Amino acid sequence: MEKNLPNIAVIGLGLIGSSIAHAAKQNGAAASITGFDHSQDVRNEAKQINLPITLTEDICSAVIDADIVFLAVPVGAMAEVVTNIISHLKPGVIVTDTGSTKQSVIDDIQPLLPDSIFFVPGHPLAGTEFSGPSAGFPSLFRNHYWLLISDDEMKHPVAILAAFCKKLGAMVEVMDAEYHDKILAITSHLPHLIAFTIVGTASDLEHDLKNDVIRFSASGFRDFTRIAASDPTMWRDVFMNNEVAVLEMLQRFNEDLSYVQKAIRRGEGEKLYSLFERTAEIRRSIIDVGQATD
Amino acid sequence: MEKNLPNIAVIGLGLIGSSIAHAAKQNGAAASITGFDHSQDVRNEAKQINLPITLTEDICSAVIDADIVFLAVPVGAMAEVVTNIISHLKPGVIVTDTGSTKQSVIDDIQPLLPDSIFFVPGHPLAGTEFSGPSAGFPSLFRNHYWLLISDDEMKHPVAILAAFCKKLGAMVEVMDAEYHDKILAITSHLPHLIAFTIVGTASDLEHDLKNDVIRFSASGFRDFTRIAASDPTMWRDVFMNNEVAVLEMLQRFNEDLSYVQKAIRRGEGEKLYSLFERTAEIRRSIIDVGQATD
Repeated sequence: MEKNLPNIAVIGLGLIGSSIAHAAKQNGAAASITGFDHSQDVRNEAKQINLPITLTEDICSAVIDADIVFLAVPVGAMAEVVTNIISHLKPGVIVTDTGSTKQSVIDDIQPLLPDSIFFVPGHPLAGTEFSGPSAGFPSLFRNHYWLLISDDEMKHPVAILAAFCKKLGAMVEVMDAEYHDKILAITSHLPHLIAFTIVGTASDLEHDLKNDVIRFSASGFRDFTRIAASDPTMWRDVFMNNEVAVLEMLQRFNEDLSYVQKAIRRGEGEKLYSLFERTAEIRRSIIDVGQATD
Repeated sequence: MEKNLPNIAVIGLGLIGSSIAHAAKQNGAAASITGFDHSQDVRNEAKQINLPITLTEDICSAVIDADIVFLAVPVGAMAEVVTNIISHLKPGVIVTDTGSTKQSVIDDIQPLLPDSIFFVPGHPLAGTEFSGPSAGFPSLFRNHYWLLISDDEMKHPVAILAAFCKKLGAMVEVMDAEYHDKILAITSHLPHLIAFTIVGTASDLEHDLKNDVIRFSASGFRDFTRIAASDPTMWRDVFMNNEVAVLEMLQRFNEDLSYVQKAIRRGEGEKLYSLFERTAEIRRSIIDVGQATD
């Protein structure tokens, strides 16, 4: 075994937490992997699928020997988890999280931590619409960005955590929390909010029409339902904790939507055409930077 | 060769038209396949990829022997195409189209046609974000719905066309135009409009932020960019030709979006949670009826 491998602890064994365990095991990235989930059902499921992790029956035993602690719980639950583990953490431990909002998590956690504990907020840009321990898999992070929040990427704990994430196959970028929250608001939070909303709109249709919408769900809507099937608790917490950036992007989106609405009402096809041409370029850019394969 | 196979003509050799040719050939569904596209570039591309079709240099030669004519052009171009071919059609020919809106196509085409020509409007619910002859493939319609518009599915031309579409692997459903346009407005047109809009919103961001949005495009946004990369002309025509149903669905969507916006602003997490739970059910229904595999 490689020298100096960290003992890691994973709190929260959903899609992300269980994937961290799988990936750490498969890539030989940790000396030991302990884990806990506050739900007995989730712990049982983790046991049943032989998640490569030493499950503990209480949260404190999970973290007591850890060099790196991953908080993979909904962002609304971070503060409570930290409160529960704080007195059991080793001095010098690195605590990180995997939440989709960063400023709110920092505001919640940082004040609780003594100087002997290093908090490096993180966010792996990886996921599927599935939840729970069974949804995890070892290659989830491979070739995906894992964003770390710091004003100095040369800091020792940041460098250690970055090295660990890279071992799981991720590409690491360091940025500040405000910028992170803005980027995620437009790339992830707003798209999810819109998908949840339009699927909700469809579910309010009269009974027959709704059934046929389900039956004839063409590609556009079907993609939205996949996005809108994501974990409700996680996403409620995201919107509760990144409201400033989400509302700002939502306002811009609303203005743009009014513009296309007006263009449709007035029969101004050329305005629509020029928008639709422009959006195809963005797709090409994403393909060019390797974030989509087709 | 099977007896009584129809001679088919395909006007418009984009994704749908070229896939009809591929599928007809592969499934032995036609005695002959002729085709035309008004664009010389498209005809050259079709030749280069050996699209299994007898290309003609003028639109009239393509249809002159046809028993079934497929109009696979943007819905805004249907009337012009019909005007060009009408005097060259055989009596008893079945004309169908593949447009995404149906009432507007009927309004455009029906008045042009004499009684000796049967018009059966159609819409295969199949596609990708790619365009052009090279995008077509023989299995595009397999296990997808192909909607036909008629008040009587026992009518001879409807039955013949339905049999043909089934040979290409499609599942055929007959319905009326208004209902079709309503279903498509929510399952396809509105999702595309929203995807085009949000990708447009992103492309208006300040330069650095825009570049990082492209770079870190997480799954939600990346899915939207795929949808928003669809053919601009086709989609402009869709919105110009299904404005009533699209605007109605858009209004409902806007009301629902205001609701979630207000919930975020007021920190009403329970309202968001109950919406997000409801939308996951719709996804399960779609999986149950076999319109999505995961």
